[in-house]
Amino acid sequence: SIEMAWTTAGYDTGKYPALSFFTAVPFGPSFGEYMAWKMFGGGDVLEEEIYNGHGIHKIDCLAIGPETSGWFKEEITDLEQLRGLKMRFFGLGARVMQKIGVSTQLLAGGDIFPALEKGVIDATEFSMPAMDIKYGFYQIAKNNYFPGWHQQVSVSHLLINMDKWNGLSDQNQALLEIGAGESTMYIYAETEYVNPYAMVEMGEKYGVITRRWTDDQIAVFEQAWRDVVAEDS
Amino acid sequence: SIEMAWTTAGYDTGKYPALSFFTAVPFGPSFGEYMAWKMFGGGDVLEEEIYNGHGIHKIDCLAIGPETSGWFKEEITDLEQLRGLKMRFFGLGARVMQKIGVSTQLLAGGDIFPALEKGVIDATEFSMPAMDIKYGFYQIAKNNYFPGWHQQVSVSHLLINMDKWNGLSDQNQALLEIGAGESTMYIYAETEYVNPYAMVEMGEKYGVITRRWTDDQIAVFEQAWRDVVAEDS
Repeated sequence: SIEMAWTTAGYDTGKYPALSFFTAVPFGPSFGEYMAWKMFGGGDVLEEEIYNGHGIHKIDCLAIGPETSGWFKEEITDLEQLRGLKMRFFGLGARVMQKIGVSTQLLAGGDIFPALEKGVIDATEFSMPAMDIKYGFYQIAKNNYFPGWHQQVSVSHLLINMDKWNGLSDQNQALLEIGAGESTMYIYAETEYVNPYAMVEMGEKYGVITRRWTDDQIAVFEQAWRDVVAEDS
Repeated sequence: SIEMAWTTAGYDTGKYPALSFFTAVPFGPSFGEYMAWKMFGGGDVLEEEIYNGHGIHKIDCLAIGPETSGWFKEEITDLEQLRGLKMRFFGLGARVMQKIGVSTQLLAGGDIFPALEKGVIDATEFSMPAMDIKYGFYQIAKNNYFPGWHQQVSVSHLLINMDKWNGLSDQNQALLEIGAGESTMYIYAETEYVNPYAMVEMGEKYGVITRRWTDDQIAVFEQAWRDVVAEDS
């Protein structure tokens, strides 16, 4: 009943697990490599096959830079501390965290803060610093972890009812495709610009401590990701 | 007398050395960081100031992935081998190579092969693998060096006569700006897709040996770049 929607493939994985590969891939490609696969390497073709089956046309329209890989109340010195933790986590990264022993759930943006506040979850990842700052997670958890190994770049799209799409003139279709393409780069560049400032502001104004996983810890996440891939292959 | 031109800022440095910073910066930013600086961090404003002074409006319209950092006849095991070498080199990277003892000159694409063939130059860098393959440098020099520390991403632009630009409707101006923005990302993604295939093809069909500078050699290039920056600051 709606003509268009703006969302990201990872939220549609309940029905199609494969769609999780079209928002972000853990330990995955950079922006250029990811768009290369989508636009020229057959990625978009696979994704459209799924959506087309539901009478939907899809156009990528947005990309954002690396996310935080988690807001935690305490510093995590040993990954054993993650075992049994209840954490909001999106996409394929959630599969990795489950391997580490985390109990993950996917909450929508607006539900995260109250869940953190009431102790329904102990920790969360959501988006990039410039977005997370607006959600105020730092009021409850001051330890913000990087790198965002689970979403080094994230892509979102416009979904359009296929009949409405087919009803547009070639010219208007081209305007939408080209405008969405430009928007993808524009927003990606904008996030690369604003995120460092958001991190500085969170540190100076809200006492957020930016932490980096050690190389050893990242190696554990990466091995867990390989195990997930091996299981699903 | 022409209304538009397609070129890259680095070719206009004879008159304005500062323009070399708008095509590529050695040891510089990734695509996202570079576009962030250009679009949101004041880079474009500085560049337009220079072009506007000549009645020209500029719009970025193309980006390409990492270039090769040189085609050499012999394997370079010791940077001392570069001393006295005559080499085609573009942009700020040329300043670095001069510090290493290379005698650089900037030849246009079509002039490089004959210069290599006649021994006017001993070595060259030009563009990315998918472009270099068409110029056939591998016929004379089989050693292709990476990473492209001198141009990790390169941006080109459309220059438009300001009176012509001002004569366009707001709508047509927007179409050009948005189309050029989409083209920047589209071409960047395309180069990320085609370059690895070009490298494989050059290896298999033409016996090109892809080589990587050692970390120690890259450190020498990077120190030379820092010296250039310190000199000019």
